[in-house]
Amino acid sequence: MNMLVGCPAETEWHENRVAVTPEVVARLRRSGLDVIVEAGAGRHASFPDEAYVAAGARVAERSEVFAEADVLAVIRRPDCARLRAGQIVIGLLQPYDAPEELAAVTALAFEGLPRTLSRAQSMDVLSSQANVAGYKSAVLAADTFGGFFPMMMTAAGTVRPAKVLVLGGGVAGLQAMGTARRLGALVTGYDVRTAARADIASTGAAVLDLGVTAEGEGGYARALTAAEQAAQRRALVDAIGSFDVVITTAQVPGHRPPELVPAEALAVMAPGSVVVDLGAGPFGGNVAGSVPDGQTVTENGVVVVGAGNLPAQVPRAASSAWARNVAALLEHLTRDGSVVVDPEDDITAGLLVRAKERVS
Amino acid sequence: MNMLVGCPAETEWHENRVAVTPEVVARLRRSGLDVIVEAGAGRHASFPDEAYVAAGARVAERSEVFAEADVLAVIRRPDCARLRAGQIVIGLLQPYDAPEELAAVTALAFEGLPRTLSRAQSMDVLSSQANVAGYKSAVLAADTFGGFFPMMMTAAGTVRPAKVLVLGGGVAGLQAMGTARRLGALVTGYDVRTAARADIASTGAAVLDLGVTAEGEGGYARALTAAEQAAQRRALVDAIGSFDVVITTAQVPGHRPPELVPAEALAVMAPGSVVVDLGAGPFGGNVAGSVPDGQTVTENGVVVVGAGNLPAQVPRAASSAWARNVAALLEHLTRDGSVVVDPEDDITAGLLVRAKERVS
Repeated sequence: MNMLVGCPAETEWHENRVAVTPEVVARLRRSGLDVIVEAGAGRHASFPDEAYVAAGARVAERSEVFAEADVLAVIRRPDCARLRAGQIVIGLLQPYDAPEELAAVTALAFEGLPRTLSRAQSMDVLSSQANVAGYKSAVLAADTFGGFFPMMMTAAGTVRPAKVLVLGGGVAGLQAMGTARRLGALVTGYDVRTAARADIASTGAAVLDLGVTAEGEGGYARALTAAEQAAQRRALVDAIGSFDVVITTAQVPGHRPPELVPAEALAVMAPGSVVVDLGAGPFGGNVAGSVPDGQTVTENGVVVVGAGNLPAQVPRAASSAWARNVAALLEHLTRDGSVVVDPEDDITAGLLVRAKERVS
Repeated sequence: MNMLVGCPAETEWHENRVAVTPEVVARLRRSGLDVIVEAGAGRHASFPDEAYVAAGARVAERSEVFAEADVLAVIRRPDCARLRAGQIVIGLLQPYDAPEELAAVTALAFEGLPRTLSRAQSMDVLSSQANVAGYKSAVLAADTFGGFFPMMMTAAGTVRPAKVLVLGGGVAGLQAMGTARRLGALVTGYDVRTAARADIASTGAAVLDLGVTAEGEGGYARALTAAEQAAQRRALVDAIGSFDVVITTAQVPGHRPPELVPAEALAVMAPGSVVVDLGAGPFGGNVAGSVPDGQTVTENGVVVVGAGNLPAQVPRAASSAWARNVAALLEHLTRDGSVVVDPEDDITAGLLVRAKERVS
């Protein structure tokens, strides 16, 4: 008998994404898996129940999805009390502060994906969602800014394009640069890692050089020393004042994000400038005074947008990408209609949440 | 003595624009005019009082601006009780329902600009603001849509670009097409006027042909006959269902805007589709059920954005363009530091609100 993949609705506030889309239902069925989806699970991402049914899924109540599914695909860690022993759960499960109940199930946390393996890249939700966040950050900046992004040539004269600075040359930053450039802005990128500078240049953006480097492990920037931070801060403050829009994307996993745009930098920006902080979160943000999911205006008229869960604000694109990542993983794990969790497999080994990790 | 140009703050709700910018203050002074600006007039467009002072304007209280200015530059018709006899007032003054007080002043209403004169194009606020509205409509649509506008090629596969339909090939429609194309969408344009189809093609958009034409006077579309409207409606309903985003820009001055997207068309669109109605206003809109400045969602999940005063939502760009139009007009009218209103001049003749027009 085919194993059953279940997709419950997400329950966090403003979490509009869904882990499985109708497109992926059809794909999983071709791999010999059956799919059960909670009624309304795709509603906020514009995937109606009928589309899931048309793709071959069964639409059911929440309790049935949790009770019957062999594999649960989720975005965020679900109500663990509903899980049953032996069930496989796939999602961003926050393994380091997971509750006891997760010990009874086979938890595959995307946080542990070996991201540098090329075979794993099609399963990388952190990357696919960062891409969505980067796109959205540029569109949001354009929608918030009171001027044009592109140069405009009209009967009454020419208007110069907006000057946009993107801090961070990871997936989100590169996509923000690319999208701002599409819209016609003059884009400059910056990253503390020297290696990221070629990526920035490849988007067509100019590269800002502040004379500080912070190459770190696993593709992330390392935390800068206090002296380096001070030097970077001074050089950035000097540079930032000439930009109309700044988008910051610097996150260091598990740590407080670096403050890249301090109050002194905001103070030298022109009124009406916009700063979008993709690093804004519970531990702080990249921008002084930014509030997650909130917009504030400084005394000198700079608009600071603390971007929280941006992928959830582009739910169709984000869910489509996420579901494809889930499909790639399940195809990797499935043999003859059964999902096999083999701890010897390098991808599975990375994903598998082990008991020792659960003790925070 | 130089004549004094005054710029009061706008007072309508959400009217963030200002008729004179610091850039234009400097330009007017080069023409031999002095400038007085109400304190805070440029605040919502991100032009602080200091910038006006630096450009050579005097910043003063509202009562002083109205009392001292020889020429008042405004966006919308001001409180006419404050005007004094002999004052020149320049703006969108709604001459056809103007109050008695406007008879005591020299009212130059941009509504009457002879738009087809090439010399007048640098003074055309209707055109410059339509350009801003078109740009904003596409950015707003991208920000509202739950998917990507551009095609995305990622490790997990390719995502097709959004399909965008723009109805109306005037200034706003053409700029909406151009901006949606910048963002990477697949854009199709439509206009009832055959002549506008070449303009649509020049933006790179595909041209939708529904087999109905409505060439009208002065560059506007004429109102269609009932039979033509029915034919157009049927053909559009058939076409609209295949688009992710529809932007409508059809306005017929002084008349109810044509309903281009009826309820039947909304009903065949996919959930999550977005319709932006630039025609939404007090007389109705181009889209069934659209509300000015409001967002509604149909039963089948289509988001209808009734765009009201979009230029006011891009206040820096809109004010800059408007102020340049004002400067071009004042330069045309100024002789040796004096603004001369000569009814024999063809541009002035068009703008001048005459007593007979004031009777509604």
